[in-house]
Amino acid sequence: MTRKEFQEFIAKGKMILDGATGSNLQKRGMPTGVCPEEWILEHPDVLVGLQREYIEAGSDVLYAPTFSGNRIKLEEYGLADQIGEMNRKLAGLSFEAIRQADTDRQVLVAGDITMTGQQLYPVGNLPFEELVDIYKEQIGYLVEAGVDFIVVETMMSLQECRAAVLAVKEASELPVMVTLTFAEDGRTLFGTNPETAALVMTAMGVDAIGVNCSTGPDKMVSVIEKMGRYTALPIVAKPNAGLPQLVDGETVYDMGPETFAEEMCVLAEAGADVLGGCCGTTPEHIEKLVKRLEEKGIRKAMKYPERKGKVVRRALSTERNVLPIELDGAFKVIGERINPTGKKALQAQLREGSLELVGEMAEAQVEAGAAILDVNMGTNGIDEKEMMWKVVNELTLLTDTPLSIDSSYVEVIEAALRIYPGRALINSISMEQEKMRRLLPIAQKYGAMFILLPLSDEGLPKDIQEKKDIIHTVLKAAAEYGLTPEDVIVDGLVATIGANKMAAVETLETIRYCKHELGVATACGLSNISFGLPERAFVNSNFMAMAIMNGLTMAIANPSQDLLMHAVYASDLLMNKPDADLRYIERVNEHKLTMVSGEVDSQSLKTSVSSGSKASAAIPEDKQGDEI
Amino acid sequence: MTRKEFQEFIAKGKMILDGATGSNLQKRGMPTGVCPEEWILEHPDVLVGLQREYIEAGSDVLYAPTFSGNRIKLEEYGLADQIGEMNRKLAGLSFEAIRQADTDRQVLVAGDITMTGQQLYPVGNLPFEELVDIYKEQIGYLVEAGVDFIVVETMMSLQECRAAVLAVKEASELPVMVTLTFAEDGRTLFGTNPETAALVMTAMGVDAIGVNCSTGPDKMVSVIEKMGRYTALPIVAKPNAGLPQLVDGETVYDMGPETFAEEMCVLAEAGADVLGGCCGTTPEHIEKLVKRLEEKGIRKAMKYPERKGKVVRRALSTERNVLPIELDGAFKVIGERINPTGKKALQAQLREGSLELVGEMAEAQVEAGAAILDVNMGTNGIDEKEMMWKVVNELTLLTDTPLSIDSSYVEVIEAALRIYPGRALINSISMEQEKMRRLLPIAQKYGAMFILLPLSDEGLPKDIQEKKDIIHTVLKAAAEYGLTPEDVIVDGLVATIGANKMAAVETLETIRYCKHELGVATACGLSNISFGLPERAFVNSNFMAMAIMNGLTMAIANPSQDLLMHAVYASDLLMNKPDADLRYIERVNEHKLTMVSGEVDSQSLKTSVSSGSKASAAIPEDKQGDEI
Ligand SMILES: [Zn+2]
Ligand SMILES: [Zn+2]
Ligand SMILES: [Zn+2]
Repeated sequence: MTRKEFQEFIAKGKMILDGATGSNLQKRGMPTGVCPEEWILEHPDVLVGLQREYIEAGSDVLYAPTFSGNRIKLEEYGLADQIGEMNRKLAGLSFEAIRQADTDRQVLVAGDITMTGQQLYPVGNLPFEELVDIYKEQIGYLVEAGVDFIVVETMMSLQECRAAVLAVKEASELPVMVTLTFAEDGRTLFGTNPETAALVMTAMGVDAIGVNCSTGPDKMVSVIEKMGRYTALPIVAKPNAGLPQLVDGETVYDMGPETFAEEMCVLAEAGADVLGGCCGTTPEHIEKLVKRLEEKGIRKAMKYPERKGKVVRRALSTERNVLPIELDGAFKVIGERINPTGKKALQAQLREGSLELVGEMAEAQVEAGAAILDVNMGTNGIDEKEMMWKVVNELTLLTDTPLSIDSSYVEVIEAALRIYPGRALINSISMEQEKMRRLLPIAQKYGAMFILLPLSDEGLPKDIQEKKDIIHTVLKAAAEYGLTPEDVIVDGLVATIGANKMAAVETLETIRYCKHELGVATACGLSNISFGLPERAFVNSNFMAMAIMNGLTMAIANPSQDLLMHAVYASDLLMNKPDADLRYIERVNEHKLTMVSGEVDSQSLKTSVSSGSKASAAIPEDKQGDEI
Repeated sequence: MTRKEFQEFIAKGKMILDGATGSNLQKRGMPTGVCPEEWILEHPDVLVGLQREYIEAGSDVLYAPTFSGNRIKLEEYGLADQIGEMNRKLAGLSFEAIRQADTDRQVLVAGDITMTGQQLYPVGNLPFEELVDIYKEQIGYLVEAGVDFIVVETMMSLQECRAAVLAVKEASELPVMVTLTFAEDGRTLFGTNPETAALVMTAMGVDAIGVNCSTGPDKMVSVIEKMGRYTALPIVAKPNAGLPQLVDGETVYDMGPETFAEEMCVLAEAGADVLGGCCGTTPEHIEKLVKRLEEKGIRKAMKYPERKGKVVRRALSTERNVLPIELDGAFKVIGERINPTGKKALQAQLREGSLELVGEMAEAQVEAGAAILDVNMGTNGIDEKEMMWKVVNELTLLTDTPLSIDSSYVEVIEAALRIYPGRALINSISMEQEKMRRLLPIAQKYGAMFILLPLSDEGLPKDIQEKKDIIHTVLKAAAEYGLTPEDVIVDGLVATIGANKMAAVETLETIRYCKHELGVATACGLSNISFGLPERAFVNSNFMAMAIMNGLTMAIANPSQDLLMHAVYASDLLMNKPDADLRYIERVNEHKLTMVSGEVDSQSLKTSVSSGSKASAAIPEDKQGDEI
């Protein structure tokens, strides 16, 4: 099935999935402790029978019983060598069920994959590429078996979802649907919230996204709503039949078909258009669900088309949380310090393989107010790609701050994006044709946002009109890859005022134009503006205020420059950004900055700083930007 | 003659004045040392004969021989009691000359007045009002004699010009023409330059302005050109016949009629439309001048209409120099400190009659970068009007910085404007009907600019639309008094962000609207914005940068706040204002400001400031704005 056919199938009305497989097989004789795939192949009629009942109940989709049919899981039962045959046969059972059901309705078979049970590096030891290969292998057999699409389900790790989605896209042309499992605290086992999952999976180009297992439908409303804010894709809800209870040593779910159907209608109203059941649900649950939807007249009323154009896509994320980038929201600083250029101590550490300073820089920048961390590993004597890969892994563990991947090399950027477990920012894509044509599909594939640097193969734009033309050209090229203006942050391209007296005026106009006429977010590397001038901090901070007034969304800066950061918070306050008053007051209280007029003896000043917990305490502000 | 008739007369073609009176009378027998007015009345035929020759030479205007016919001068000869009769008779001689000449041309008689020889307070002892009265007295007799207009000539003091012009306007409805005498350094004896004279006299509503005596026409070109930049009135050039030389104990002027006429044509090209001769010129000089103008075909080609709409009117001045206020020029700070509100030490001094602290505040503010000084004397226990009068006199002596006259009382403002020797700023005129209708004619009479405060009798405008409506209403009312948008500086009316979160946004929009849509200058009292917030200096200085970006022309502020002033200079630099780069570099070099991050022990900080020449050296920036 093509992605287009899948979309058309979904568009016809609520797509009804099947209900539980495992809990029903157990009721029909499957003992615990066995390899389910093996048992099913030994008792094919049980599975075929169950799936026929689902078809008769109204399911439009059968999940092929290939859930744990990946090499790692099968290896646990010594069955890894039979992986191809097993997956093909298991999928074949679902096709057999459809054949036997002999219905006029089109019923799809989803190739079902899930987690391997091994943890990915750097939390565990499983390399990301190995997991991608494991999924690719299983998907290959499922494709051979003729499944209509792939469902990645019961996922508790967003990073493993990413590996699976990359595998689907690299091994097939099939549609892919992803459902995660959230605990009652609203997060997956690995800490991902529904917004993040929806954002990242949508940006990576899946065909439907949702939740399965987790809870009963009654506890799933807020998860569906949260996802709905970040995706205009069909949302899947495949909850359990309520809560599990142990009755006579057996796990029993407490929600009967009638209640289940009723609660599922509530989920449908909350935004779910693909509906099914997980643990504890039976063909009767599905039957009642279909009946209730018809009775209420909501079988055909689809929710996801209403969300088109209204969902948040202009957002970055870590694996766990989303960082929305609002055009009128709190100003964001991209911390620029994780870059060995001009930093001898950092260079030395990196050459020795130590990431200690990188970690310290990350923490210090976040403490000082950075919302995003730029990572650039370009320097002599370091394998940039390898070092970038290491640092991204390290920072993923250390902080919950989205990363901006900064390199001149396409390979370095792709290596970082491939393992980055959320939605990252590419710094940057310009109109240099060859690189642009390589980077835009990479941004698309990994669901990254990117900084649009208005340069071309001819170098800097001659004037503001050429700058605007470049911006339009890159936005148009991005659209060819399905990237929207919401995926883009335009760099205002700050020149040096010493070389071009109109540098500030032209950048401010670029910012105003992007925000107010194009509705596109903007960024700036501010400090260039004052190159060669004395007391640069004053020029930089006042430029910051002007840029924020013109609508600048974020800046690449050193957040330990307190004057600059005070300017950010004061400017947000002046522009009446949400809660900016509270943030300003908190800022100036927590980051004391005293100005001393007149000639100051900096030696004695140092001694006058009492109990300075901050290294920058006695450093004149304009020196803080220099490389320490 | 009405002012309208005078304008029509001038518009017909170059208006030709007469030549010298005194030097010709001496040649015809008047001894030195006598009272010229008395001698003329004793030898009426000599004067009448000379003036007949001027009419025959082509003069359109005869200056009545009343030059020193004021009470002070006549008193020197014991003739003060005959002042009325003498002035009437002297003017009568000019009318007699016209009668005898029996020409078809209309020839006008100008009542001629000049300086008294006594210096005005506070340089000398002559009270300003006494001088106004002395001029009024003489003008009264000239009006009785039927002169067509008043010429105030050979003026070396702009303040005495102002007294004479006020006297003309208060004692008559006649047109008034003012010519000053500039030394070879381009300034009057009292230091006024041509631009200032042109600006102030034009703003006060004279009918023609120019230069007489001074030098030969060849050295007068730049004076005429400078005046032409500041007035679209007809410019008068009545130079001497070159340089005076002593030949056999007699003063002889070295420029013959031919050369004089030739050089006068150059002045006409430079912008002079009213032409005549002063010391050393004869009827032959005038005759050749008229002939040469006709030969060159420039008799009818008037220059002043070409200057309409192109001259600078948006400018303040002291008695000596002009401060142009350009919409895209260097940002200006109105120093706010000369105001006893909340300043105990200043209040005490003022009550004791000491202006020492006022003087120190003026000097300190100018040193710190104030371009204009606000003066407010409103406080308990002080006669505000009397104190304002004293302080304006004092500051006029002490500084060369224009004043902003700040009071709630119309009488106080008028008292200050009356004696202020340049073009001052009224702070402020709102739409409060009664006060507005009293203050607008005062602004017109004294040629002041004013700050338009967008308040009405109903108080603060409810929203930005009402604010704009008030601005339009006051501008319209001002136009009824001949005041143009160039006479107005709109106050952006800064509210407190703590009370109205949109305070900054609304003020910035007001500034943008005034500058970019109305083309009107703007001012702000910035510090209100941050009332109640901690670390106000950061809010104020960032607001300053935003306001300058929106086109704010000036701010009312304390220029000893270094962070704020740094913001001003950095913002001008960023906006690419003229020479802003040099001004920024000079600023930060001369006003050192060090930032100290972290907790600082302010006691030990104080000791660390080495050789602080500035009182503010160790005072945290945000405390500097407080009342010390
Ligand atoms: Zn389940
Ligand atoms: Zn800090
Ligand atoms: Zn003269």
